[in-house]
Amino acid sequence: MRETWVVGAATNRYGKMAETGREAATRVALEALDVSGIDPKRIGYTFVSNAFGVAERQAHLGPLINTALGLPDVPSATIESACSSSSAGLHEAFVHVAGGFLDAALVVGVEKLSHLDTLAATSYFAMGADSAFETRNGATFPGLYATLAHAHRQKYGTTSEQLGAVAVKNHANGAKNPHAHFQKEISLETYLRSPVIASPLRLYDCCPFSDGAAAVVVAAREMVGAPSAEPLVIRASARSGSVAEMQDRPDLTGLPATRTAASAAFRQAGVGPEKIDFTEVHDCFTIAEVMALEDLGFYPKGRAAAAGAAGETSLQGKLPVNPSGGLKAKGHPVSATGAGQVVEIFEQFNRRAGARQVPKTEWALAHNVGATGGSCSVHIFSHR
Amino acid sequence: MRETWVVGAATNRYGKMAETGREAATRVALEALDVSGIDPKRIGYTFVSNAFGVAERQAHLGPLINTALGLPDVPSATIESACSSSSAGLHEAFVHVAGGFLDAALVVGVEKLSHLDTLAATSYFAMGADSAFETRNGATFPGLYATLAHAHRQKYGTTSEQLGAVAVKNHANGAKNPHAHFQKEISLETYLRSPVIASPLRLYDCCPFSDGAAAVVVAAREMVGAPSAEPLVIRASARSGSVAEMQDRPDLTGLPATRTAASAAFRQAGVGPEKIDFTEVHDCFTIAEVMALEDLGFYPKGRAAAAGAAGETSLQGKLPVNPSGGLKAKGHPVSATGAGQVVEIFEQFNRRAGARQVPKTEWALAHNVGATGGSCSVHIFSHR
Repeated sequence: MRETWVVGAATNRYGKMAETGREAATRVALEALDVSGIDPKRIGYTFVSNAFGVAERQAHLGPLINTALGLPDVPSATIESACSSSSAGLHEAFVHVAGGFLDAALVVGVEKLSHLDTLAATSYFAMGADSAFETRNGATFPGLYATLAHAHRQKYGTTSEQLGAVAVKNHANGAKNPHAHFQKEISLETYLRSPVIASPLRLYDCCPFSDGAAAVVVAAREMVGAPSAEPLVIRASARSGSVAEMQDRPDLTGLPATRTAASAAFRQAGVGPEKIDFTEVHDCFTIAEVMALEDLGFYPKGRAAAAGAAGETSLQGKLPVNPSGGLKAKGHPVSATGAGQVVEIFEQFNRRAGARQVPKTEWALAHNVGATGGSCSVHIFSHR
Repeated sequence: MRETWVVGAATNRYGKMAETGREAATRVALEALDVSGIDPKRIGYTFVSNAFGVAERQAHLGPLINTALGLPDVPSATIESACSSSSAGLHEAFVHVAGGFLDAALVVGVEKLSHLDTLAATSYFAMGADSAFETRNGATFPGLYATLAHAHRQKYGTTSEQLGAVAVKNHANGAKNPHAHFQKEISLETYLRSPVIASPLRLYDCCPFSDGAAAVVVAAREMVGAPSAEPLVIRASARSGSVAEMQDRPDLTGLPATRTAASAAFRQAGVGPEKIDFTEVHDCFTIAEVMALEDLGFYPKGRAAAAGAAGETSLQGKLPVNPSGGLKAKGHPVSATGAGQVVEIFEQFNRRAGARQVPKTEWALAHNVGATGGSCSVHIFSHR
């Protein structure tokens, strides 16, 4: 297996895009190629993620992007795994390059739903859940994650103030990120006064619908001469599934797919959670960040919420979590989210994260969840 | 690179499915696993193709299928490449298994659009084309392929009778296939009397919209003991792209993506077109079969149509083409089509194709096109 690197990464500002998904995807892909410094002709495959491209009446986006990039002969496919789509694309790129099938590959995630009304956008999002047993019975993601939050609260006494601390921290980080959808701090008081969306989750527990695009260039170590930027060495690329429907899971205080993927990833990387300096985790709701930190093994079950509230996960804390602002504040353009997490880690490794720069950047972990954990990707990166 | 086999394959009858895509996909996956005889616990990844799952309000189909199969922890992703989606999924499975990342993988393609009216179904299909420069200007696939047919006719004198011969042959084959959407023969007179859809293409030049599902089990040679059925050795798995928009191509008498993928596939397999005993090619329109046979190198440009009309591509001809009935008669359930071609080759290799059995089955080729050739997959198979 060849050592495989992320050699370039780029994103646009998440939020509301005036341009089409196709245009945004092409733009960030060009930027990522430019950052990488590698000859675009070395790209052997483009893995596009655009789960809800149908909302723009456009499937089969790969050939359009490749043609615009001047790489018409390069094959492509669109990879969808709900909110973990572009981390699934990164996994494909890793396998192709590490396995020696390609020298380099491009991963692009993009989503645009802001031209739809909220009901239509919500109905696209809900397609990631189980239409027969969840959506059709009225379940939406806020409701499903609220169920998880209730279970966690009941078993571990997780408080509103602790969930609020996640939102406050991620907004504080997002305020320092020029690519974030929400670039404003909030106070715990603002959080506690915000309306309940699905008890116990309030408005500020929920990530927004965002448009956005992010791209990552992956290459085999031996084909990169002197890299233009400090690369991320992919030490682990692991994916997993779990019982799709929440009603069939024995426990609702965490996501089994996170535990399975994390265990495989740490085994691949040959390190444990204590080695990780900072992490981007999938905080579609504040409770998701709490569960992720426990399921990934950073904290014992029931301990992450208090640790976060005590400041351990802030930029200067013991384990900075979501320095980008996370899905909560940076935003959640479904298919761009996973690639966007890697962009943040790339910026941090290159010490270009400005006011949100974390102190130590030797090892990082990216955690991306599909829906309520039917899918999960965990990637671990280190310096050369 | 490990020798990689197709060890199981199954399809339902294409046409109109009463069950959901999810149910059909699960059923054919179970059947393919059953045929393979391998322990389902060896499956390490499920590659689902379901380009237009949104038409059933269901994305993220993999975890639902895996959960139903009793494999909830197995990761999955949905692979879309327009009409070449499940051959793109097969390519991923091949890379993962041949590269040693997995012992076995499941490829499932499914599509259900028959519950929509024709206009809505057409608008889903059209998303495989370029929405900004083709669809928005009124181009649909019959019109785009009619343009290719005109160019071919103008340069090589391809006649209606020659295109009709493709339809007559594929309907004759489909009439012998219990899985085919259309199981009836047509005469050349019927073809010539059928209405013009987009000149020069008539009704019987066009494949139907079909529902359908097909599944393939891929495994590394060394993990298969005594196979339950004669496996297909994957000698080549190649994909390519080409300039997405037809107006930017220098020539319209063929598909450059087919030539690129074929050239890579024959190089991988170490054989030439003369070695192939029979082939399943992408005949979404009759002209597509003619172009495929030329672009794949089976015939010089401008010679395939006459050869077909002379009977060379019939079941007992020199090179049987589309013994299944092809997209034309077996049907075209977009995301199931590529996997379905492999099911046919599996049946032929196992001498279970009944009245449509071709005489020689040592080497076969499957050719699957996305849209008007923005994407293409070519797989080459042989016996052990």
